Amino acid sequence: MLKKVEQTCDYLATSRPTAVNLFWALERMKRRARNLCHLPCARMRTLLLEEAHRIFEEEISRFRRIGSLGATLLGNNAVVMTHCNAGALATAMYGTALAAVYVAHQQGKNVSVIACETRPLLQGARLTTWELKRGGIPVTLICDSMAATTMKNKKVDLILVGADRIAANGDVANKIGTYSLALLAQAHNIPFYVAAPLSSFDPTLDNGSQIPIEERSPEEVRRFRHTPSAPRDVNVFNPAFDVTPAKLISAIITEHGIIHRPTRQKIKKLIKSHPCET
Amino acid sequence: MLKKVEQTCDYLATSRPTAVNLFWALERMKRRARNLCHLPCARMRTLLLEEAHRIFEEEISRFRRIGSLGATLLGNNAVVMTHCNAGALATAMYGTALAAVYVAHQQGKNVSVIACETRPLLQGARLTTWELKRGGIPVTLICDSMAATTMKNKKVDLILVGADRIAANGDVANKIGTYSLALLAQAHNIPFYVAAPLSSFDPTLDNGSQIPIEERSPEEVRRFRHTPSAPRDVNVFNPAFDVTPAKLISAIITEHGIIHRPTRQKIKKLIKSHPCET
Repeated sequence: MLKKVEQTCDYLATSRPTAVNLFWALERMKRRARNLCHLPCARMRTLLLEEAHRIFEEEISRFRRIGSLGATLLGNNAVVMTHCNAGALATAMYGTALAAVYVAHQQGKNVSVIACETRPLLQGARLTTWELKRGGIPVTLICDSMAATTMKNKKVDLILVGADRIAANGDVANKIGTYSLALLAQAHNIPFYVAAPLSSFDPTLDNGSQIPIEERSPEEVRRFRHTPSAPRDVNVFNPAFDVTPAKLISAIITEHGIIHRPTRQKIKKLIKSHPCET
Repeated sequence: MLKKVEQTCDYLATSRPTAVNLFWALERMKRRARNLCHLPCARMRTLLLEEAHRIFEEEISRFRRIGSLGATLLGNNAVVMTHCNAGALATAMYGTALAAVYVAHQQGKNVSVIACETRPLLQGARLTTWELKRGGIPVTLICDSMAATTMKNKKVDLILVGADRIAANGDVANKIGTYSLALLAQAHNIPFYVAAPLSSFDPTLDNGSQIPIEERSPEEVRRFRHTPSAPRDVNVFNPAFDVTPAKLISAIITEHGIIHRPTRQKIKKLIKSHPCET
């Protein structure tokens, strides 16, 4: 049974290389399985399921705390630009970046969101707009290429995104297009925030250049679902994530506090105070 | 007959508000019609058609000159990033931005292109990749959101785009996403070039904020050709063009010379030497 759990965890770990909290959760399940391996199979299965549910409940409480802290950065009438989906659909319950929006909304603040569509898989268009509308939060959809002109000509108070992995120095890997938004935000003097639980930090990596970036099938760019959009054999570069250097990040919002102007030292200190979370 | 030509020209002028050389060509046809209005209808029609063909031939020779001048900026093994389609399909024969690539290729230089797909209408994916492949020029397709990470991690020697209208101070209106590329190019110390004939200059507009920017149907963003990509009633902001400030532009390549670091004075001087072109 233990061997099967370990094999399954190792298999699941091969699914995506970039996001680190998948590995964190799998490691935790493996650890738990090792501690339970003296028990009969059925009992072990029940307790492992309980552990998985515990992770889920803990995640929700983490995201609620991220939301409460994040909401302090959102004034009344705040317009938040976001990328991809760092909401309920990608995580649990509140999400990370969107948790701040949901909490601010619950506090009676008038907040609205500009969602970048996030090519090639259009998570912003398909997921973020859907869940925000469902939550009663006004949302406007734009193509990724419209972010710069939107920042220049419309009211955008802050950029708020999630993270797939954060290196020891504060460099953040997140959905492709995030680095672009961070540079554009800097050019327009708009603060750029990342919301992520401590489990997204990977202190084993010195900086963002060491984060493995998944490259995906050219077909994602050559077509949208079943509709071709380019010559069928055209050469494509399709990185699924990019790395935003720490120096472009105004703050990282974690469940244990906001790290303003993230540095190696500040991150180390926060992780040290909460050793079980990474 | 004259009235009908004028009405038709006025109608065609309402088709798109941003690109200025459409108006330039229509004005020229109207002027020619006025000079010919004493002639019988059939004769006037023939001479107007000749005038239209003359414009076409002149455009080709302009684009050839733009290409020759532009090619001087492309070294051997140059990697050019471009946006939308400023090639044969959008203009005549050589195009503007792509003319430089075609001429460099003809000169035996090893040049390749990175084409941004250009959401929402995907002119980069559908047109630019197709015509470059047909011309034997290596091309790689990326999503617009991948431009920043491509500039950072791959070899990109220059950005080269077309223009729909250029104000007196050198601000350039071009396909949505161009302004974004210009800011990203600046952040990565990559030169940013605009190729356009003098007919794209509009000296009646002091600066880019006066260029009318067409906003198009939300449906273009809510769907990907026939495939829906967002909730059907989601709010959308869909500007078809943006304005790149002159200060981000390394040079404007015209058929009468390259304007390095464009300023109001340099532009005025060039236009003054070629009064028939604007």
